[in-house]
Amino acid sequence: MSLQFSDITAARARIAPHIKRTPVLTNEALDAELDAQLFFKCENLQAMGAFKARGAANAIFALSDADAAHGVVTHSSGNHGAAVARAAQRRGIPGYIVMPNNAPQTKVRNVESYRGKVVFCAPTMTAREETCARIAAETGAVLVHPFDNYDVMAGQGTATLELLEDTPGLDLILCPVGGGGLLCGTAVAAKGVRRAIRIVGVEPELGDDVAQSFRAKKRITIPTAPTIADGLRTSSTGEKNLPLILKHVDDVVTVSEDAIVAAMREIWERLKIVIEPSCAVPFAAIRAGKVDVTGKKVGLILTGGNVDLDQLPWQKL
Amino acid sequence: MSLQFSDITAARARIAPHIKRTPVLTNEALDAELDAQLFFKCENLQAMGAFKARGAANAIFALSDADAAHGVVTHSSGNHGAAVARAAQRRGIPGYIVMPNNAPQTKVRNVESYRGKVVFCAPTMTAREETCARIAAETGAVLVHPFDNYDVMAGQGTATLELLEDTPGLDLILCPVGGGGLLCGTAVAAKGVRRAIRIVGVEPELGDDVAQSFRAKKRITIPTAPTIADGLRTSSTGEKNLPLILKHVDDVVTVSEDAIVAAMREIWERLKIVIEPSCAVPFAAIRAGKVDVTGKKVGLILTGGNVDLDQLPWQKL
Repeated sequence: MSLQFSDITAARARIAPHIKRTPVLTNEALDAELDAQLFFKCENLQAMGAFKARGAANAIFALSDADAAHGVVTHSSGNHGAAVARAAQRRGIPGYIVMPNNAPQTKVRNVESYRGKVVFCAPTMTAREETCARIAAETGAVLVHPFDNYDVMAGQGTATLELLEDTPGLDLILCPVGGGGLLCGTAVAAKGVRRAIRIVGVEPELGDDVAQSFRAKKRITIPTAPTIADGLRTSSTGEKNLPLILKHVDDVVTVSEDAIVAAMREIWERLKIVIEPSCAVPFAAIRAGKVDVTGKKVGLILTGGNVDLDQLPWQKL
Repeated sequence: MSLQFSDITAARARIAPHIKRTPVLTNEALDAELDAQLFFKCENLQAMGAFKARGAANAIFALSDADAAHGVVTHSSGNHGAAVARAAQRRGIPGYIVMPNNAPQTKVRNVESYRGKVVFCAPTMTAREETCARIAAETGAVLVHPFDNYDVMAGQGTATLELLEDTPGLDLILCPVGGGGLLCGTAVAAKGVRRAIRIVGVEPELGDDVAQSFRAKKRITIPTAPTIADGLRTSSTGEKNLPLILKHVDDVVTVSEDAIVAAMREIWERLKIVIEPSCAVPFAAIRAGKVDVTGKKVGLILTGGNVDLDQLPWQKL
């Protein structure tokens, strides 16, 4: 079993009542500067403020009634947690959310607003997984992994189906990479529509586990990294993700912290939208010259907009 | 002569190549809290970052070749200036922009990026008008007034045609009021589609010239007000605007500075978009209880997103 294009079209139908079709934004001045056409898929404007609403809704509504009866549990630096809480609330089952104790307050409140039951743990992958396993054992809740899960990946890929409908003829799609759930969904969706679309994942240099794994062709685990892109602080991609990445993704590149902050600010200023640092990463790759977009039609997935408005990274407070 | 519904449908066709169809955003949590359905028409995502792109494009492309030959001139606290500069650039004629010397740097740069010729003057309506008149006399440029102009009003009204197509059945539309150009366009467009739609203008208490004029049924001039809503710092509505306002607008209400800042921040945080203080004013009226939205479908025009990201009004720097 793996992730197929048909899983993504099925996910689209399944989650339609639970998510928004988000707009695609363009900027004429930016296009003129770059001699390219950029299309920003605004998942920061998605329900609960991130694309994660898609994957969680797909995974949770795909469960049988018997499997769903005791609820769901997950671990998340924030947006996936809120997404699972929201989908569980909509299905009328308990949602247990394991969060690292350094998660931003905005993201904790977001989870709680959907009646998610928050359980804090140490900010390590080991602590998260152990806490999840304990809750699953105690309650019978089903684990909805943030990325190492085909239903989650299929849900995330639905954003790309919409993007390609709204902007046919894309040459290239750039997407941020944390664990690789979005990257796998994006790649399978795009290649299913048109094989020639190039797919490039972009990671912070401080969290380059997938870039390393892509080059080594095996899963590499790194220490949890303090990148400002808090949604991308993963130690390694998933067992199910790496084969899909190696099969469908054309390249994975990395960007510096400074480039991420500058790109985030530029998107706020020019596109007039609030994005979190994690989704500035692909635009940072363009500005840093890590990806050549000259003469190309380029899609960028903007993944989320949950930030603390009192602590903006370009301000020294 | 006055402003007719047919002027707005004609404007829509005229400016279609020069503007964007902007998205309408909703927020499920906000709707649940307010027991209402709010539809935010995102003109902050318009070309050059404000609805003003519409009115300026309509006025400038409506000119005959002979009238347009020597260019156009206007005065503006910023967004209308950028809009005139942009439309003039697209038509290939000179655009002279008279700006108050206290205009935000972001707005000055915005005008210059469209090759507008900026001329600074004192921040009073008298100084602006005199400078405009001098330039018109010296160059033969045609004045494109920011609001006291039927073609400008017709262009601004096109946003409401789109809003009503995307969200049929609105009970109420709220829009910010500076000089009244947007309010007139909005009211004539909405009443032309459906007479029963209620139209309410919202002004800062510190710049309540239109609220006063609405009650007095005559044009009242007030001292230029230091409201944070810098797009709404007008001393009086236009000669052409007041009769339209009295005929088509149902009410004009006012909000405090604190309510504007709180509403601005809430929209950034919940809708994930960057808006300038001027367009937080209608949502502020809802939060302040100045407009009852219970059980209603409500449209709000978000007018622009040009702000200085280093100086956010909720931060004490």
